[in-house]
Amino acid sequence: MNLKAVILAGGSGTRFWPLSRMNRPKQFLPIAGDKTMLEETVERLLPLIPHKNIVTISNGEQAKLIRRLVPKLPAANILAEPQAKNTAASLILATAHIYFRDSGTIVAVICADHLIRKREIFLRKLGAAAEAAFRNDVIVTFGIPPVYPATGYGYICYSKKEATRIGGQLFYSVLRFKEKPSFPRAKKYLAAGDHFWNSGMFIWRADVFAAKLRKYAPVFYAYWERILKALKEKNQAEVDSVFHEIPSLSIDYALMEKAEGVLMNEGSFGWSDIGAWSSLAEVWPSDDAGNAIWGNGTVIDSRNCLVYNPRKLTALVGLKDVIVVDTEDALLVCHKGHDQKVKDVLESLRKKGQKKFL
Amino acid sequence: MNLKAVILAGGSGTRFWPLSRMNRPKQFLPIAGDKTMLEETVERLLPLIPHKNIVTISNGEQAKLIRRLVPKLPAANILAEPQAKNTAASLILATAHIYFRDSGTIVAVICADHLIRKREIFLRKLGAAAEAAFRNDVIVTFGIPPVYPATGYGYICYSKKEATRIGGQLFYSVLRFKEKPSFPRAKKYLAAGDHFWNSGMFIWRADVFAAKLRKYAPVFYAYWERILKALKEKNQAEVDSVFHEIPSLSIDYALMEKAEGVLMNEGSFGWSDIGAWSSLAEVWPSDDAGNAIWGNGTVIDSRNCLVYNPRKLTALVGLKDVIVVDTEDALLVCHKGHDQKVKDVLESLRKKGQKKFL
Repeated sequence: MNLKAVILAGGSGTRFWPLSRMNRPKQFLPIAGDKTMLEETVERLLPLIPHKNIVTISNGEQAKLIRRLVPKLPAANILAEPQAKNTAASLILATAHIYFRDSGTIVAVICADHLIRKREIFLRKLGAAAEAAFRNDVIVTFGIPPVYPATGYGYICYSKKEATRIGGQLFYSVLRFKEKPSFPRAKKYLAAGDHFWNSGMFIWRADVFAAKLRKYAPVFYAYWERILKALKEKNQAEVDSVFHEIPSLSIDYALMEKAEGVLMNEGSFGWSDIGAWSSLAEVWPSDDAGNAIWGNGTVIDSRNCLVYNPRKLTALVGLKDVIVVDTEDALLVCHKGHDQKVKDVLESLRKKGQKKFL
Repeated sequence: MNLKAVILAGGSGTRFWPLSRMNRPKQFLPIAGDKTMLEETVERLLPLIPHKNIVTISNGEQAKLIRRLVPKLPAANILAEPQAKNTAASLILATAHIYFRDSGTIVAVICADHLIRKREIFLRKLGAAAEAAFRNDVIVTFGIPPVYPATGYGYICYSKKEATRIGGQLFYSVLRFKEKPSFPRAKKYLAAGDHFWNSGMFIWRADVFAAKLRKYAPVFYAYWERILKALKEKNQAEVDSVFHEIPSLSIDYALMEKAEGVLMNEGSFGWSDIGAWSSLAEVWPSDDAGNAIWGNGTVIDSRNCLVYNPRKLTALVGLKDVIVVDTEDALLVCHKGHDQKVKDVLESLRKKGQKKFL
């Protein structure tokens, strides 16, 4: 079995502003450990998937950064998109590259900016998922057991009754992919117990991906065919030209919500998408009062605070649940319960014409 | 009438850390306006007391700074103490310098680090107080009408019945100076209505000061006489030597708590001793939500915050009553209700041997 990873590294989030900026999103920041999240993602895979089988896809600027960060990746594996599109386009392009060489290759779609704490379990499950995708004409995904009624994730509704055991793992039939729900609906999902979070990870055989596109997303299959043809003709200009035409949709929306023949394994491997500053509170080491401080800190009567300030002294006095992030040109002080509003700061800066901080 | 001001500029507070440091206390910071508090104090006096009649007293390092900040002050007026002592020693030395030239001079003791918002009223009252001190053998002081049961100020208990009108102002007989009270006692003072805050400002004729020392603080009078003698002999070494011997006590404790013949005028001129960061919230301009921001700020869902960060962008998100002070090497984030604990930060830094931040 030929197993390759496609690391989606093209995201451009700004939820870690002011540390993350437009040209340096969180996968290129060392926020969950000593290395950037991209480097950690690559290293996590290595026992199962060597460098030569790891492909990244991102924009051109990010591709340059990836070459510097992970010099062991073959240059040909670092794919650059000619334009920022959504994941459907990225995965059509990356899978076509792989299909072109060997249509029976198993492709594991991995996010560059997610944290997985339990690496051994993850690799065991990934191996079994690859096995399942190799043996059957199915797409395999990991569902994350939900711990609260999140409205920021998509959900996977699965059938507890229909499970197959492959490689020591249980794979459930997926009934439906569901978009981000309202809060009341999310609570219902949680109560029902048959809805897991959509992790954004998928495992498919390249030819099965093509077949699913053909059957469930024919509009996208047309682009797939044209890209594949251009790759065979070594016509990069045509590849780029077709890519520009692909509608900007997520793979979830373009394919997964429509496809049948999808299996789900329980992604119980310490997953976190590190969605905002407050999620780092569970990742960084903290003191007895729950303060996680990256840098030189002095804490007086404060608890559950999070500080990123490697350059200078930070003193906290009488605070609770406050996030402090200091960079060279901008300082963020934010209540933990409001860290989703960091985007409003960016919106305000944009309106005021202070683009240098974006 | 010869009227001189003695500005006490030798304080060494650190309540405005990290902006104020050991060698740069708040009177040398531009925190209450565009100029340093010392400069503002001098300029406030000018319509009544010209530069040539303004004397400062501080340590030698601070004296150098004062020369740079207020070049119009005659060099001879910038007195330097050989050692950090309390206000009794400072005022004995400064008043002796003035007495030596003209014992009938009126001396107005002014603090370099207090804010007075209503300058016209202040000058009118200061003029009347000087008149009162000139005509009578009394020490005059300003009592600040208390607005809350403060435990951080001394109090002046006065007799409402015994009032004299001089220069259009009422001067009440002081019954007693009282040390900083406990909270229950402060509440009683406030309820009684005959206790005002001790402003630390005094107006005395130099010869009356000497007479009061002689009668109510004979230990200190002995130092006074020796300093005066050394000044007459132009023996600076002897001046310094005597100064070293003076007990380190406040003038309140050394003289005012014991002296009789003290009059008080109501100091209703917008006084604030700017005791900590939170007091600046009333001084700096603020937005509709009560946020006072010194620097480039972007505020999302936050109120009653105070930010000093002139160098970079500050973004506040979802905060209430938070103080943020960013300097080149240290960042303070502090709840407004806890700003008195900034000294605990310094204590902690001292213990950890991080003296460069003090």
